[in-house]
Amino acid sequence: MIIRKQENWFRMLFIWQGSVLPRLLGRLSLLLLLSLVVLYFNGAIFNYKIQLNPAPFTLFGIALAIFLGFRNNVSYDRFWEGRRLWGSMLNTTRSLARQAQTLTHKGAPTDTGHFVKLLIAFSWCAKHQLRQTDPAEDLHRLLGARESEQLRGKRYVPNLLVLEMGKWLQVLHSNGSINPLLAANIDHNLNELSNIIGGCERIASTPIPYTYKVLLHRTVYFYCFLLPFGFVDSLGWMMPVIVTFIAYTFVALEAVADEIEDPFGVEPNDLALNALCTMIEHTLREMQGEIPGASPDPKHYNLD
Amino acid sequence: MIIRKQENWFRMLFIWQGSVLPRLLGRLSLLLLLSLVVLYFNGAIFNYKIQLNPAPFTLFGIALAIFLGFRNNVSYDRFWEGRRLWGSMLNTTRSLARQAQTLTHKGAPTDTGHFVKLLIAFSWCAKHQLRQTDPAEDLHRLLGARESEQLRGKRYVPNLLVLEMGKWLQVLHSNGSINPLLAANIDHNLNELSNIIGGCERIASTPIPYTYKVLLHRTVYFYCFLLPFGFVDSLGWMMPVIVTFIAYTFVALEAVADEIEDPFGVEPNDLALNALCTMIEHTLREMQGEIPGASPDPKHYNLD
Amino acid sequence: MIIRKQENWFRMLFIWQGSVLPRLLGRLSLLLLLSLVVLYFNGAIFNYKIQLNPAPFTLFGIALAIFLGFRNNVSYDRFWEGRRLWGSMLNTTRSLARQAQTLTHKGAPTDTGHFVKLLIAFSWCAKHQLRQTDPAEDLHRLLGARESEQLRGKRYVPNLLVLEMGKWLQVLHSNGSINPLLAANIDHNLNELSNIIGGCERIASTPIPYTYKVLLHRTVYFYCFLLPFGFVDSLGWMMPVIVTFIAYTFVALEAVADEIEDPFGVEPNDLALNALCTMIEHTLREMQGEIPGASPDPKHYNLD
Amino acid sequence: MIIRKQENWFRMLFIWQGSVLPRLLGRLSLLLLLSLVVLYFNGAIFNYKIQLNPAPFTLFGIALAIFLGFRNNVSYDRFWEGRRLWGSMLNTTRSLARQAQTLTHKGAPTDTGHFVKLLIAFSWCAKHQLRQTDPAEDLHRLLGARESEQLRGKRYVPNLLVLEMGKWLQVLHSNGSINPLLAANIDHNLNELSNIIGGCERIASTPIPYTYKVLLHRTVYFYCFLLPFGFVDSLGWMMPVIVTFIAYTFVALEAVADEIEDPFGVEPNDLALNALCTMIEHTLREMQGEIPGASPDPKHYNLD
Amino acid sequence: MIIRKQENWFRMLFIWQGSVLPRLLGRLSLLLLLSLVVLYFNGAIFNYKIQLNPAPFTLFGIALAIFLGFRNNVSYDRFWEGRRLWGSMLNTTRSLARQAQTLTHKGAPTDTGHFVKLLIAFSWCAKHQLRQTDPAEDLHRLLGARESEQLRGKRYVPNLLVLEMGKWLQVLHSNGSINPLLAANIDHNLNELSNIIGGCERIASTPIPYTYKVLLHRTVYFYCFLLPFGFVDSLGWMMPVIVTFIAYTFVALEAVADEIEDPFGVEPNDLALNALCTMIEHTLREMQGEIPGASPDPKHYNLD
Repeated sequence: MIIRKQENWFRMLFIWQGSVLPRLLGRLSLLLLLSLVVLYFNGAIFNYKIQLNPAPFTLFGIALAIFLGFRNNVSYDRFWEGRRLWGSMLNTTRSLARQAQTLTHKGAPTDTGHFVKLLIAFSWCAKHQLRQTDPAEDLHRLLGARESEQLRGKRYVPNLLVLEMGKWLQVLHSNGSINPLLAANIDHNLNELSNIIGGCERIASTPIPYTYKVLLHRTVYFYCFLLPFGFVDSLGWMMPVIVTFIAYTFVALEAVADEIEDPFGVEPNDLALNALCTMIEHTLREMQGEIPGASPDPKHYNLD
Repeated sequence: MIIRKQENWFRMLFIWQGSVLPRLLGRLSLLLLLSLVVLYFNGAIFNYKIQLNPAPFTLFGIALAIFLGFRNNVSYDRFWEGRRLWGSMLNTTRSLARQAQTLTHKGAPTDTGHFVKLLIAFSWCAKHQLRQTDPAEDLHRLLGARESEQLRGKRYVPNLLVLEMGKWLQVLHSNGSINPLLAANIDHNLNELSNIIGGCERIASTPIPYTYKVLLHRTVYFYCFLLPFGFVDSLGWMMPVIVTFIAYTFVALEAVADEIEDPFGVEPNDLALNALCTMIEHTLREMQGEIPGASPDPKHYNLD
Repeated sequence: MIIRKQENWFRMLFIWQGSVLPRLLGRLSLLLLLSLVVLYFNGAIFNYKIQLNPAPFTLFGIALAIFLGFRNNVSYDRFWEGRRLWGSMLNTTRSLARQAQTLTHKGAPTDTGHFVKLLIAFSWCAKHQLRQTDPAEDLHRLLGARESEQLRGKRYVPNLLVLEMGKWLQVLHSNGSINPLLAANIDHNLNELSNIIGGCERIASTPIPYTYKVLLHRTVYFYCFLLPFGFVDSLGWMMPVIVTFIAYTFVALEAVADEIEDPFGVEPNDLALNALCTMIEHTLREMQGEIPGASPDPKHYNLD
Repeated sequence: MIIRKQENWFRMLFIWQGSVLPRLLGRLSLLLLLSLVVLYFNGAIFNYKIQLNPAPFTLFGIALAIFLGFRNNVSYDRFWEGRRLWGSMLNTTRSLARQAQTLTHKGAPTDTGHFVKLLIAFSWCAKHQLRQTDPAEDLHRLLGARESEQLRGKRYVPNLLVLEMGKWLQVLHSNGSINPLLAANIDHNLNELSNIIGGCERIASTPIPYTYKVLLHRTVYFYCFLLPFGFVDSLGWMMPVIVTFIAYTFVALEAVADEIEDPFGVEPNDLALNALCTMIEHTLREMQGEIPGASPDPKHYNLD
Repeated sequence: MIIRKQENWFRMLFIWQGSVLPRLLGRLSLLLLLSLVVLYFNGAIFNYKIQLNPAPFTLFGIALAIFLGFRNNVSYDRFWEGRRLWGSMLNTTRSLARQAQTLTHKGAPTDTGHFVKLLIAFSWCAKHQLRQTDPAEDLHRLLGARESEQLRGKRYVPNLLVLEMGKWLQVLHSNGSINPLLAANIDHNLNELSNIIGGCERIASTPIPYTYKVLLHRTVYFYCFLLPFGFVDSLGWMMPVIVTFIAYTFVALEAVADEIEDPFGVEPNDLALNALCTMIEHTLREMQGEIPGASPDPKHYNLD
């Protein structure tokens, strides 16, 4: 996630980092070149004049507006739902930590510390599952050698951690350290954890129907590469400038939408899962009376 | 569901598989032919010149934008709600499996394995009901001959499976293996299963009001087949190319929307229900300590 | 609700049944006549030429797009919320039937059959209340003479049926046939029934603010009846065809939106409440071990 | 709320009552006058011709479409959320009345009548708080002199009534007339009442950010008052008619949005809170076995 | 938050306070200056005529409409979700105060006053956390020296306050002053408080993806600074007026969206968190039987 302070309106026009411009330079240069060629030959290919004028572009406009608007909204909704799920993870782990501390009978011998570590491990493993990295190291750090060994090679680790929490709870209500009624409240929040990790898996495993992407992609690029022919007569030597800028807005919009469609990746605009996991760990440790470490600082305006 | 890795922007312009183009070839060829004829006769039929210019197309544009935008959003919402319901199925069956294992008194003689098999059968039967196929084989595999026989020929099998789960729970709380309070939590999740299968039935049985489809269909095709007459004068020999591409975007958009409107079918962009059922089975078996089989691989980029 | 199989794209252009065209024939003929007159007099009235060109229509376009898009979305949301509420009715009655069978102590003398009949009666009475018809016959069939007599002439019958279910539950938990905790779960679902019938009443009793309708109606018709004057010069003898088709799309869109605004009526695109009630009755009877009758078949593609 | 039967499409074009036209007559007359002056002087002021043509209006169009569409959707969402909250009030009070009657032990000495009167008073006081009127009269009618006296001059009366209901419940579960578990269900619905009144207060106290209103207002009026200059050349003597009608649609749209933004007021399109309160009172009394009075009839098509 | 009474439609056109105009004066003056220069040189730079006409602006229009509409909706959704969360805070703290008073056994020695003060402190600390100010003073006023000292320097104070409430509840259900079942209801509302503060932190810590802002910003300003060249030929001396006004609407829309994107700040259109905290304090004190102070009055139409 890119974190930058609010810039002056004028300087913001020339920002390089945080813009997608660098990644699009190739395509836009190609288009600029085409525009210059078209300008030079005055829109003709081997003396066959391409008879194109601005009128059909307004018709394309309808399709473009629907496609781009749709793609954009859907991608952002996925991004925001992902964020919302990670926000729920923060809320629910906090609630569970509170419940583990306060719903048991006062003075009952409960190992709250272990439960809280399971919660912290849950968030880190969720990150590892979504980014398809190996959770072994974090598991070892938090749960020790024996427990982390048992989880090695499992396919749905966060789900198994929720099962572990359920077993921790079973011991409690079986030996009478907690009233079954209040255990039911904890169980309710464990359901919530299931919903959260399942929701993240849903977003990660179901992209936007592929056909939409192909359709949109073709419309955008066909549109942009026809632009020089359509405007060479009416705009003259300004044409390459205008055409490249119009194309920039459309192509960039598609590129951003593509980036945040899977919000759990490691591209610049994706969610800062590492920072979120660290925050969850800090707030849970603070509730246990520990003093949490420093928050992560963005490097080059970037939190991962 | 089509699963393809991210392609290079240039190669993506020429993708064949995963595009709806093949299915639309007939209609678009017809339109191309018409365009060429119109071009040849210069927009006149038996010397009666069709006086059409680009202006009225912008008026049509309003209706088209509303219709296509609406159709598209509604279809996608149905697709995504279907996915969301199947995501909830994953979450809720996981939660129920956890609850069956951990909410009973430690050491109580409960046949968790049978309950988990009911859960797995529930997901496969939901698939069979939505795709109107026969669940007999899967039921036999999971529940054995006697129980699957009892369900043969029933109309709402998933619902009856939820009833079976309820009866399994009744035995438990009647013989004291589980605190009634915690049984209430399991019962709550059984409601959730009712809501999930009911929600899927709702989407499958209630299409978009038919009149909308007729209206949209007529507007799109009337619009496309008038295009050649409107642009023959201003675009010249470029007209057939432009007209066919514009028509492609509109017709394809309608076709995709039609495809994902019923997300539970077996068309390329529909949900991969088989893969989802397999995943549910694997994750539940993993929670039981079994080692699940391999995940399904997409064939020709296609998961069903 | 209109139920038709997917038609070929070509045949779908000429469908009569299921289209709103028949109902709009009068208005569109009037407009066609006007167009022909305008064409004959070349846009002049008593030699006063109406100076109108396509430009102002694009301005109207903004207003039209906002109005029609808004009206359309709101109407469809009402339709879909209505469907969703009836879907919840199916889910909740199923859940209640399951709970009545399985949450009581095994072997407790509970008259589940009566409770299920109350549930079935609830759905039929909901239909009667929403369509303002007399529920007496259905009540008599399901609850017998005595109970149906008590409900005669009551204003909010479905609500009183929920009260009856509550009283049925009170007997159970008062004589100890059910654990109060599990009774609480049933009570929770009775709340849900209250919410469902209340939600339906809300949709039925609160139309879209009247002023919106008047505004939209005026804009659409003013727009359509000005069209002939605006296009007589540029489109020539094609004008009446184009104008009538454009008007058809706008007027039809308004008509459909008007039809599904109250989704509980008996117009072709409204919800098939009878079919839904029958389905609820069948699935509940199946849960009781009865063999349900046949599903209703659409007559002339129409389910009511 | 305006309640009118469906009119014939033709007669609906000339409806006066229920339209906002009367309120806008002043502004539109002013604009008509301006148009006539512009027409007379042919768009020139002291021989300085105002060079304006239709082109810039399409640019304005983007801003207008965004502003009006946004304002309209937000206002309607507020209207519908308000309606939804009052619908929840109906559902929740019904549920609470049912629970008060059926969750207690059969034959326990509970004063259900008093509780139901608190519920009815809650709905009337909610209306009075939202319309900033004095609830004293209704409180006296429902709760008698002593209790209504205690609530005189309080700032958040509905909230205090919920507290009263809580105290009524406390007596019940303290003297054993109700199982604490079932009391928990009633308490849950009291939370719901808190949410409802809080939701209404939220809508009533937080208007749309003021800057939006100012921006929209300026854009609409600037646009409308420039229209005559832009179309005087191309539309000739039809210009005043067209301009006034276009302005009517935009100005009226803003006026309606402004009216329903605060849905709890007493303007024609606002919610009929009195009718809703009466309905809640009737349905609750019917549940108590009383025979409710007649429903309010709309006066001049208007329910307040 | 700006609080102004409804103004007359005419006077509202010239409002200064509450408009963003003052902040934009610099940029708009710059544009006006450019327009005048362009007008003077007739759109040529060193005799090179900039060949620009209105046509390409309609293409830009698509991108602008998508960007501005998207930015605007997302910002407003964030604003309204923030408001909704603070509304929930009001509802939930009221419910908790009611539960603390009425769910305990009648006459049990419970220090409700302390619990209510924790609730009030929660709301003030939420404000301080979101605005990154020091909560020490408010904590001291409400909780006394000892408790406020313990919270000094903690990172997530509101969360620790919820933990405190949990501990207060633990004492109650451990010493039997409250039935565990009803304690479960209170615990449920404590979860709600976790969700509320977590939701606010989510909004505050996750801005709109930065790339969107850069893209939109560039498109808006590039568009506005090209306008003079595009319209100098067709609008003549009216051009600077029209161009400045069009630019005003776009630039102002972006500025407002930027302002309400983080609704918890102290800019004029942000939420009035101080007023909301005061309201929560007043209504909770009223429930305790205290007489609350006066409500805050807006200063210069502004509530902070």
